[in-house]
Amino acid sequence: MTKRASTARSVREALQVAEGPFTLLGYDPAGTPLAPGSKSKAAKDLARTGKVLAEQQVMLYANGTTGDQRRVLLVLQGTDTSGKDGVVSHVVGQVGPAGVRITSFRRPTAEERAHHFLWRVRRALPAAGIIGVFNRSHYEDVLVTRVHESIDDAAWAERIADINAFERELTESGTVLIKCFLHISYAEQRKRLLARLDDPAKYWKFNPADLDERAYWADYQSAYAAAIAATSTEWAPWHIVPSDAKWYRNWAISQLLCDGLLGLKLSYPPADFDIEAARARLQPPF
Amino acid sequence: MTKRASTARSVREALQVAEGPFTLLGYDPAGTPLAPGSKSKAAKDLARTGKVLAEQQVMLYANGTTGDQRRVLLVLQGTDTSGKDGVVSHVVGQVGPAGVRITSFRRPTAEERAHHFLWRVRRALPAAGIIGVFNRSHYEDVLVTRVHESIDDAAWAERIADINAFERELTESGTVLIKCFLHISYAEQRKRLLARLDDPAKYWKFNPADLDERAYWADYQSAYAAAIAATSTEWAPWHIVPSDAKWYRNWAISQLLCDGLLGLKLSYPPADFDIEAARARLQPPF
Repeated sequence: MTKRASTARSVREALQVAEGPFTLLGYDPAGTPLAPGSKSKAAKDLARTGKVLAEQQVMLYANGTTGDQRRVLLVLQGTDTSGKDGVVSHVVGQVGPAGVRITSFRRPTAEERAHHFLWRVRRALPAAGIIGVFNRSHYEDVLVTRVHESIDDAAWAERIADINAFERELTESGTVLIKCFLHISYAEQRKRLLARLDDPAKYWKFNPADLDERAYWADYQSAYAAAIAATSTEWAPWHIVPSDAKWYRNWAISQLLCDGLLGLKLSYPPADFDIEAARARLQPPF
Repeated sequence: MTKRASTARSVREALQVAEGPFTLLGYDPAGTPLAPGSKSKAAKDLARTGKVLAEQQVMLYANGTTGDQRRVLLVLQGTDTSGKDGVVSHVVGQVGPAGVRITSFRRPTAEERAHHFLWRVRRALPAAGIIGVFNRSHYEDVLVTRVHESIDDAAWAERIADINAFERELTESGTVLIKCFLHISYAEQRKRLLARLDDPAKYWKFNPADLDERAYWADYQSAYAAAIAATSTEWAPWHIVPSDAKWYRNWAISQLLCDGLLGLKLSYPPADFDIEAARARLQPPF
């Protein structure tokens, strides 16, 4: 990891998971690969990147209005307190809210359970020109289920195959898919849970059931590793984002999102009408 | 107008339309009632208000997770180029994107036309704890239709009655409804349309059909005045927001939104669990 980061030219390269065997053990949740020299430099860089993101989003949207089918989907996964909501506020919050579609996936409803697990996910996909954000996603259906053994290995493998086919379909039809695992340590999660108990403005975020899930920490780490290994494909690789430092997490995911948008080489669509004729119709007294 | 603004204590009071007869003629689109001394002071005040808005939105959301049914709906109406998109970016963009639901109403689809005109509007209502934003709204169905005479007076009056009943139902069931008419002048619209023709980054926003609609300017002003008069109710009054100056428009609507949220007298919900028991479960080595 350290070696790779030191030779990587972009955050994407530094954090991207290759196809093949995988373990989370080599990834330091407190790492800061390719980060600007200091936290305050990262904050300045984040603000700069935010301006680029905001402009790129407008261009993506503008092209969407002319029939361009391209769109972006940012998938955020991670244990409780890993910072998914923080990324939505601090990274996604940098772009115009009208061009963004955010979906938080919770425990499936009765109606959702009566369908294939991808049914609700397909309904939440961003339209052309839009940046979609999944706060949790279809990956919950191969994580929680594996930890609590509610599906067997064959069913798990089937879902993994469904996910890979689904994500291939998305990328083939114009979606830039950016999958991020927000990687925090067991100790950092304790700190964040305790912080919620110390601040009355955060009680509402605390759920004692999160403590029950914390007891399955090791199982979740294994389940994540297995899912990431099985779904880091050429068309939709995972990124392991060290997230013990919130500033690094926000900076790195801004970089990944920016990288994805710049890769589209967007420009503003040309006029599809006669500019001079339009101007003539606006001469006084009209 | 001038007199009222000078005695008003809040932007809400200064811009709010009373029940009864109404004309737009007395409202100056270039006015700046109750504005801070200068444009730069207004910008600072906007940033300050933005911080309050962001915190209020989190509190609204937090209460929504505990069964509180309250929510906010900001309705933005105005002619082309009046700045509805600008308000979404610069005012609504100040709060966390996950707590906001923005809907842009376009020409109704075939499916939408096959239903009552409020059908699609009801589907777009914000859930409890959410700030909903309508960029155009159910009012299009009493404006465009009146200007182009696609419905008769009886049908118009029926729709107005439907709207008043609908809005009463919303406010009775916990929605704070803030209706804003973004008021610009004929000359300002020309300036903004020409600006779109001068900037290749704005061609995509320009539609020659907007020039056709501009030819109906006076009819639209009458239609707006009639709709505003008929739907400025005690439970859902209109606000006429002078919008020739974009800085004033953003400042004033931030004030209105903030006023609406502060009126809820929100606080963070108390813990619904045993704080000490939770803390005990997080002692090392757990």
